[in-house]
Amino acid sequence: MKKFEEKTLTSQSIFKGRIISLQVDEVELPDGNTSKREIIKHPGAVAVIAVTDEGKIIMVEQYRKAMERSLVEIPAGKLEPGEDPAASAARELEEETGYGCKKMEHLTSFYTSPGFADEIVHMYVAHGLRKIEQPAVTDDDEFVELMELTLEEAIKYETEGKIKDAKTAYAVQYLQLQKAINK
Amino acid sequence: MKKFEEKTLTSQSIFKGRIISLQVDEVELPDGNTSKREIIKHPGAVAVIAVTDEGKIIMVEQYRKAMERSLVEIPAGKLEPGEDPAASAARELEEETGYGCKKMEHLTSFYTSPGFADEIVHMYVAHGLRKIEQPAVTDDDEFVELMELTLEEAIKYETEGKIKDAKTAYAVQYLQLQKAINK
Repeated sequence: MKKFEEKTLTSQSIFKGRIISLQVDEVELPDGNTSKREIIKHPGAVAVIAVTDEGKIIMVEQYRKAMERSLVEIPAGKLEPGEDPAASAARELEEETGYGCKKMEHLTSFYTSPGFADEIVHMYVAHGLRKIEQPAVTDDDEFVELMELTLEEAIKYETEGKIKDAKTAYAVQYLQLQKAINK
Repeated sequence: MKKFEEKTLTSQSIFKGRIISLQVDEVELPDGNTSKREIIKHPGAVAVIAVTDEGKIIMVEQYRKAMERSLVEIPAGKLEPGEDPAASAARELEEETGYGCKKMEHLTSFYTSPGFADEIVHMYVAHGLRKIEQPAVTDDDEFVELMELTLEEAIKYETEGKIKDAKTAYAVQYLQLQKAINK
Protein backbone atom coordinates (compact mmCIF):
# COMPACT_ATOMS: atom_id res chain seq x y z
CA MET A 1 0.00 0.00 0.00
CA LYS A 2 3.00 2.30 -0.50
CA LYS A 3 2.46 2.81 -4.23
CA PHE A 4 3.40 6.28 -5.47
CA GLU A 5 4.92 7.03 -2.06
CA GLU A 6 5.80 10.69 -1.48
CA LYS A 7 8.98 11.08 0.56
CA THR A 8 9.02 13.90 3.11
CA LEU A 9 11.82 16.39 2.40
CA THR A 10 10.80 18.96 5.01
CA SER A 11 7.87 19.27 7.40
CA GLN A 12 6.84 22.65 8.79
CA SER A 13 4.50 22.83 11.77
CA ILE A 14 2.12 25.77 11.23
CA PHE A 15 -0.40 25.41 14.06
CA LYS A 16 -1.14 23.18 17.02
CA GLY A 17 -4.65 23.75 18.32
CA ARG A 18 -7.01 22.23 20.85
CA ILE A 19 -8.36 19.72 18.29
CA ILE A 20 -6.44 19.89 15.02
CA SER A 21 -2.91 20.71 13.96
CA LEU A 22 -1.64 21.87 10.58
CA GLN A 23 1.66 21.13 8.88
CA VAL A 24 3.03 21.76 5.41
CA ASP A 25 5.26 19.00 4.04
CA GLU A 26 7.56 19.38 1.08
CA VAL A 27 7.53 16.02 -0.70
CA GLU A 28 9.45 14.24 -3.43
CA LEU A 29 7.01 12.92 -6.03
CA PRO A 30 7.39 9.56 -7.82
CA ASP A 31 8.81 11.40 -10.89
CA GLY A 32 11.50 13.13 -8.80
CA ASN A 33 9.82 16.54 -8.79
CA THR A 34 8.77 18.21 -5.54
CA SER A 35 5.44 19.52 -4.30
CA LYS A 36 3.87 20.78 -1.08
CA ARG A 37 1.15 19.02 0.91
CA GLU A 38 -1.05 20.89 3.40
CA ILE A 39 -1.97 18.38 6.08
CA ILE A 40 -4.39 18.46 9.00
CA LYS A 41 -3.78 16.04 11.86
CA HIS A 42 -6.87 15.02 13.85
CA PRO A 43 -7.24 12.63 16.83
CA GLY A 44 -9.89 10.51 15.08
CA ALA A 45 -13.58 10.17 15.83
CA VAL A 46 -16.39 7.72 16.46
CA ALA A 47 -19.97 7.67 15.20
CA VAL A 48 -22.91 5.52 16.26
CA ILE A 49 -25.82 4.05 14.33
CA ALA A 50 -28.46 3.65 17.05
CA VAL A 51 -32.02 2.52 16.34
CA THR A 52 -34.60 2.20 19.13
CA ASP A 53 -36.87 -0.83 19.57
CA GLU A 54 -39.58 1.31 17.96
CA GLY A 55 -37.44 1.68 14.81
CA LYS A 56 -36.44 5.30 15.41
CA ILE A 57 -32.92 6.39 14.44
CA ILE A 58 -31.24 8.45 17.15
CA MET A 59 -29.90 11.75 15.77
CA VAL A 60 -28.68 15.02 17.19
CA GLU A 61 -29.03 18.51 15.79
CA GLN A 62 -26.01 20.68 16.41
CA TYR A 63 -24.57 23.99 15.20
CA ARG A 64 -21.49 23.60 13.03
CA LYS A 65 -19.42 26.78 12.98
CA ALA A 66 -17.38 25.82 9.88
CA MET A 67 -20.59 25.94 7.79
CA GLU A 68 -22.42 28.54 9.93
CA ARG A 69 -25.48 26.28 10.10
CA SER A 70 -27.08 23.49 12.09
CA LEU A 71 -26.80 19.92 10.89
CA VAL A 72 -28.68 16.78 11.85
CA GLU A 73 -26.13 14.00 12.47
CA ILE A 74 -25.83 10.61 14.09
CA PRO A 75 -24.19 10.77 17.55
CA ALA A 76 -20.45 11.24 17.15
CA GLY A 77 -17.41 12.79 18.70
CA LYS A 78 -13.66 12.96 18.91
CA LEU A 79 -11.53 10.26 20.46
CA GLU A 80 -9.90 11.28 23.73
CA PRO A 81 -6.14 10.51 23.94
CA GLY A 82 -5.65 6.77 24.43
CA GLU A 83 -9.38 6.08 24.49
CA ASP A 84 -10.71 2.80 23.09
CA PRO A 85 -13.00 3.60 20.11
CA ALA A 86 -15.84 1.32 21.33
CA ALA A 87 -15.73 2.98 24.78
CA SER A 88 -15.66 6.37 23.09
CA ALA A 89 -18.71 5.45 21.01
CA ALA A 90 -20.61 4.43 24.17
CA ARG A 91 -19.55 7.65 25.93
CA GLU A 92 -20.61 9.89 23.05
CA LEU A 93 -23.95 8.10 22.71
CA GLU A 94 -24.66 8.57 26.42
CA GLU A 95 -23.46 12.18 26.62
CA GLU A 96 -25.27 13.37 23.52
CA THR A 97 -28.49 11.37 23.73
CA GLY A 98 -28.88 9.84 27.20
CA TYR A 99 -28.98 6.35 25.68
CA GLY A 100 -26.89 3.37 26.70
CA CYS A 101 -26.62 0.06 24.88
CA LYS A 102 -25.93 -3.60 25.58
CA LYS A 103 -23.43 -4.02 22.75
CA MET A 104 -21.36 -1.70 20.55
CA GLU A 105 -20.54 -3.47 17.27
CA HIS A 106 -17.79 -2.12 15.01
CA LEU A 107 -19.14 -1.71 11.48
CA THR A 108 -16.37 0.02 9.51
CA SER A 109 -13.77 2.79 9.69
CA PHE A 110 -13.04 5.36 7.02
CA TYR A 111 -11.04 8.53 6.37
CA THR A 112 -13.35 11.50 5.90
CA SER A 113 -11.12 13.85 3.87
CA PRO A 114 -8.01 11.96 2.72
CA GLY A 115 -6.96 14.79 0.41
CA PHE A 116 -5.94 17.03 3.29
CA ALA A 117 -6.69 15.40 6.67
CA ASP A 118 -5.95 12.16 8.50
CA GLU A 119 -9.27 12.12 10.40
CA ILE A 120 -10.65 8.59 10.66
CA VAL A 121 -14.21 7.85 11.77
CA HIS A 122 -14.86 4.52 13.49
CA MET A 123 -18.49 3.62 12.83
CA TYR A 124 -20.40 1.51 15.35
CA VAL A 125 -23.87 -0.04 15.53
CA ALA A 126 -25.44 0.11 19.00
CA HIS A 127 -27.53 -2.93 19.99
CA GLY A 128 -30.00 -3.12 22.87
CA LEU A 129 -30.66 0.58 23.42
CA ARG A 130 -31.99 1.76 26.77
CA LYS A 131 -32.50 5.18 28.34
CA ILE A 132 -30.03 5.95 31.13
CA GLU A 133 -31.56 7.62 34.18
CA GLN A 134 -28.61 9.87 35.08
CA PRO A 135 -26.58 10.12 31.89
CA ALA A 136 -23.14 11.74 31.73
CA VAL A 137 -23.33 15.29 30.38
CA THR A 138 -21.91 16.73 27.17
CA ASP A 139 -18.86 18.93 26.87
CA ASP A 140 -19.26 22.48 28.16
CA ASP A 141 -19.17 23.98 24.68
CA GLU A 142 -21.46 21.46 22.99
CA PHE A 143 -25.18 22.14 22.53
CA VAL A 144 -27.13 19.35 20.91
CA GLU A 145 -30.81 18.49 20.57
CA LEU A 146 -31.95 14.88 20.50
CA MET A 147 -34.09 13.76 17.57
CA GLU A 148 -35.63 10.38 16.84
CA LEU A 149 -36.44 9.81 13.17
CA THR A 150 -37.99 6.94 11.27
CA LEU A 151 -35.96 5.79 8.24
CA GLU A 152 -38.52 7.47 5.98
CA GLU A 153 -38.16 10.75 7.90
CA ALA A 154 -34.38 10.53 7.70
CA ILE A 155 -34.53 10.04 3.92
CA LYS A 156 -36.90 13.05 3.69
CA TYR A 157 -34.43 15.12 5.77
CA GLU A 158 -31.69 14.21 3.30
CA THR A 159 -33.83 15.29 0.35
CA GLU A 160 -34.56 18.57 2.15
CA GLY A 161 -30.87 19.16 2.91
CA LYS A 162 -31.22 18.94 6.72
CA ILE A 163 -29.06 15.81 6.72
CA LYS A 164 -25.93 16.79 4.81
CA ASP A 165 -23.15 15.04 6.68
CA ALA A 166 -21.12 12.20 5.16
CA LYS A 167 -21.17 9.75 8.10
CA THR A 168 -24.91 10.33 8.61
CA ALA A 169 -25.64 9.83 4.90
CA TYR A 170 -23.65 6.59 5.13
CA ALA A 171 -25.65 5.51 8.20
CA VAL A 172 -29.02 6.21 6.59
CA GLN A 173 -27.97 4.33 3.47
CA TYR A 174 -26.73 1.44 5.65
CA LEU A 175 -30.18 1.16 7.25
CA GLN A 176 -31.84 1.36 3.81
CA LEU A 177 -29.59 -1.46 2.63
CA GLN A 178 -30.35 -3.64 5.70
CA LYS A 179 -34.07 -3.10 5.09
CA ALA A 180 -33.78 -3.98 1.39
CA ILE A 181 -31.73 -7.12 2.13
CA ASN A 182 -34.04 -8.35 4.90
CA LYS A 183 -37.25 -7.80 2.98
CA MET B 1 -31.36 25.82 10.53
CA LYS B 2 -29.77 28.45 12.83
CA LYS B 3 -30.52 26.59 16.08
CA PHE B 4 -27.79 26.98 18.73
CA GLU B 5 -26.10 29.62 16.55
CA GLU B 6 -22.60 30.58 17.66
CA LYS B 7 -21.92 34.29 17.12
CA THR B 8 -18.42 35.19 15.93
CA LEU B 9 -16.68 37.50 18.39
CA THR B 10 -13.26 37.47 16.70
CA SER B 11 -11.81 35.57 13.73
CA GLN B 12 -8.07 35.06 13.40
CA SER B 13 -6.59 33.95 10.09
CA ILE B 14 -3.76 31.50 10.81
CA PHE B 15 -2.84 30.17 7.36
CA LYS B 16 -3.83 30.59 3.72
CA GLY B 17 -2.46 27.78 1.60
CA ARG B 18 -2.74 26.51 -1.94
CA ILE B 19 -5.78 24.36 -1.08
CA ILE B 20 -6.96 24.96 2.48
CA SER B 21 -6.98 27.87 4.89
CA LEU B 22 -7.19 27.80 8.68
CA GLN B 23 -8.85 30.29 11.00
CA VAL B 24 -9.60 30.30 14.73
CA ASP B 25 -12.90 31.94 15.68
CA GLU B 26 -13.83 33.01 19.17
CA VAL B 27 -17.57 32.40 19.49
CA GLU B 28 -20.38 33.23 21.88
CA LEU B 29 -22.22 30.03 22.82
CA PRO B 30 -26.01 29.78 23.31
CA ASP B 31 -25.51 29.98 27.13
CA GLY B 32 -23.51 33.21 26.86
CA ASN B 33 -20.11 31.60 27.49
CA THR B 34 -17.33 31.76 24.92
CA SER B 35 -15.29 29.08 23.16
CA LYS B 36 -12.84 28.77 20.28
CA ARG B 37 -13.47 26.99 17.00
CA GLU B 38 -10.62 25.79 14.76
CA ILE B 39 -11.94 25.94 11.21
CA ILE B 40 -10.58 24.73 7.88
CA LYS B 41 -11.93 26.37 4.75
CA HIS B 42 -11.84 24.22 1.60
CA PRO B 43 -13.00 24.98 -1.98
CA GLY B 44 -15.28 21.90 -2.12
CA ALA B 45 -14.91 18.75 -4.16
CA VAL B 46 -16.65 16.39 -6.54
CA ALA B 47 -16.71 12.59 -6.69
CA VAL B 48 -18.01 10.25 -9.38
CA ILE B 49 -19.71 6.86 -9.21
CA ALA B 50 -18.85 5.40 -12.62
CA VAL B 51 -19.73 1.85 -13.64
CA THR B 52 -18.78 0.44 -17.04
CA ASP B 53 -21.20 -1.47 -19.29
CA GLU B 54 -19.45 -4.61 -18.05
CA GLY B 55 -20.40 -3.76 -14.45
CA LYS B 56 -16.93 -2.66 -13.33
CA ILE B 57 -16.66 0.25 -10.88
CA ILE B 58 -14.01 2.77 -11.92
CA MET B 59 -11.57 3.48 -9.09
CA VAL B 60 -8.15 5.07 -8.72
CA GLU B 61 -5.34 4.19 -6.37
CA GLN B 62 -3.46 7.20 -5.10
CA TYR B 63 -0.94 8.06 -2.37
CA ARG B 64 -2.42 10.17 0.43
CA LYS B 65 0.29 12.01 2.30
CA ALA B 66 -1.90 12.82 5.34
CA MET B 67 -2.12 9.08 6.11
CA GLU B 68 1.24 8.11 4.55
CA ARG B 69 -0.42 5.35 2.55
CA SER B 70 -2.18 4.62 -0.72
CA LEU B 71 -5.96 4.49 -0.85
CA VAL B 72 -8.34 3.13 -3.47
CA GLU B 73 -11.02 5.76 -4.12
CA ILE B 74 -13.66 6.67 -6.65
CA PRO B 75 -12.52 9.44 -9.05
CA ALA B 76 -12.67 12.78 -7.26
CA GLY B 77 -11.05 16.16 -7.04
CA LYS B 78 -11.24 19.74 -5.87
CA LEU B 79 -13.51 22.33 -7.45
CA GLU B 80 -11.63 25.01 -9.36
CA PRO B 81 -12.71 28.58 -8.53
CA GLY B 82 -16.09 29.30 -10.15
CA GLU B 83 -16.28 25.84 -11.71
CA ASP B 84 -19.66 24.14 -12.10
CA PRO B 85 -19.65 20.92 -10.04
CA ALA B 86 -21.03 18.75 -12.88
CA ALA B 87 -18.33 20.06 -15.24
CA SER B 88 -15.73 19.48 -12.53
CA ALA B 89 -16.95 15.89 -12.10
CA ALA B 90 -16.60 15.27 -15.85
CA ARG B 91 -13.13 16.86 -15.87
CA GLU B 92 -11.88 14.79 -12.92
CA LEU B 93 -13.29 11.58 -14.40
CA GLU B 94 -11.51 12.25 -17.69
CA GLU B 95 -8.20 13.39 -16.16
CA GLU B 96 -7.94 10.56 -13.66
CA THR B 97 -9.37 7.66 -15.67
CA GLY B 98 -9.57 8.57 -19.37
CA TYR B 99 -13.32 7.99 -19.33
CA GLY B 100 -16.01 10.35 -20.57
CA CYS B 101 -19.75 10.00 -20.10
CA LYS B 102 -23.00 10.95 -21.77
CA LYS B 103 -24.66 12.29 -18.62
CA MET B 104 -23.47 13.36 -15.17
CA GLU B 105 -26.33 12.95 -12.69
CA HIS B 106 -26.16 14.71 -9.30
CA LEU B 107 -26.82 12.16 -6.54
CA THR B 108 -26.21 14.00 -3.27
CA SER B 109 -23.87 16.46 -1.55
CA PHE B 110 -22.46 16.15 1.94
CA TYR B 111 -19.96 17.72 4.33
CA THR B 112 -17.09 15.36 5.02
CA SER B 113 -15.85 16.68 8.39
CA PRO B 114 -18.37 19.19 9.75
CA GLY B 115 -16.65 19.30 13.16
CA PHE B 116 -13.68 21.23 11.80
CA ALA B 117 -13.95 21.77 8.02
CA ASP B 118 -16.44 23.19 5.52
CA GLU B 119 -15.46 20.77 2.73
CA ILE B 120 -18.49 19.64 0.76
CA VAL B 121 -18.39 16.72 -1.68
CA HIS B 122 -20.84 16.78 -4.59
CA MET B 123 -21.47 13.17 -5.56
CA TYR B 124 -22.35 12.32 -9.17
CA VAL B 125 -23.34 9.19 -11.06
CA ALA B 126 -21.84 8.97 -14.57
CA HIS B 127 -24.09 7.44 -17.22
CA GLY B 128 -23.00 6.18 -20.65
CA LEU B 129 -19.29 5.70 -20.00
CA ARG B 130 -16.88 5.65 -22.94
CA LYS B 131 -13.09 5.68 -23.27
CA ILE B 132 -11.72 8.99 -24.55
CA GLU B 133 -8.93 8.64 -27.14
CA GLN B 134 -6.86 11.67 -26.12
CA PRO B 135 -7.95 12.42 -22.55
CA ALA B 136 -6.91 15.54 -20.65
CA VAL B 137 -4.06 14.84 -18.25
CA THR B 138 -3.97 15.00 -14.48
CA ASP B 139 -2.36 17.69 -12.37
CA ASP B 140 1.44 17.72 -12.35
CA ASP B 141 1.63 16.53 -8.75
CA GLU B 142 -1.02 13.81 -8.99
CA PHE B 143 -0.11 10.16 -9.60
CA VAL B 144 -3.04 7.80 -9.88
CA GLU B 145 -3.53 4.26 -11.15
CA LEU B 146 -6.78 3.22 -12.75
CA MET B 147 -8.58 0.19 -11.35
CA GLU B 148 -11.79 -1.48 -12.46
CA LEU B 149 -13.49 -3.54 -9.77
CA THR B 150 -16.63 -5.62 -9.67
CA LEU B 151 -18.97 -4.80 -6.77
CA GLU B 152 -17.88 -8.03 -5.07
CA GLU B 153 -14.20 -7.07 -5.44
CA ALA B 154 -14.92 -3.58 -4.05
CA ILE B 155 -16.64 -5.08 -0.99
CA LYS B 156 -13.64 -7.39 -0.52
CA TYR B 157 -11.29 -4.39 -0.76
CA GLU B 158 -13.30 -2.71 2.00
CA THR B 159 -13.05 -5.77 4.23
CA GLU B 160 -9.30 -5.85 3.60
CA GLY B 161 -8.91 -2.15 4.41
CA LYS B 162 -7.78 -1.12 0.90
CA ILE B 163 -10.94 0.93 0.51
CA LYS B 164 -11.05 3.15 3.59
CA ASP B 165 -12.36 6.45 2.28
CA ALA B 166 -15.77 7.82 3.28
CA LYS B 167 -17.04 8.87 -0.17
CA THR B 168 -15.90 5.56 -1.68
CA ALA B 169 -17.55 3.54 1.11
CA TYR B 170 -20.72 5.54 0.42
CA ALA B 171 -20.45 4.80 -3.31
CA VAL B 172 -19.94 1.05 -2.82
CA GLN B 173 -22.90 0.93 -0.41
CA TYR B 174 -24.98 2.92 -2.93
CA LEU B 175 -24.30 0.28 -5.60
CA GLN B 176 -25.11 -2.51 -3.11
CA LEU B 177 -28.41 -0.79 -2.33
CA GLN B 178 -29.29 -0.35 -6.03
CA LYS B 179 -28.58 -4.04 -6.59
CA ALA B 180 -30.70 -5.08 -3.58
CA ILE B 181 -33.61 -2.85 -4.65
CA ASN B 182 -33.55 -3.97 -8.29
CA LYS B 183 -33.33 -7.67 -7.50
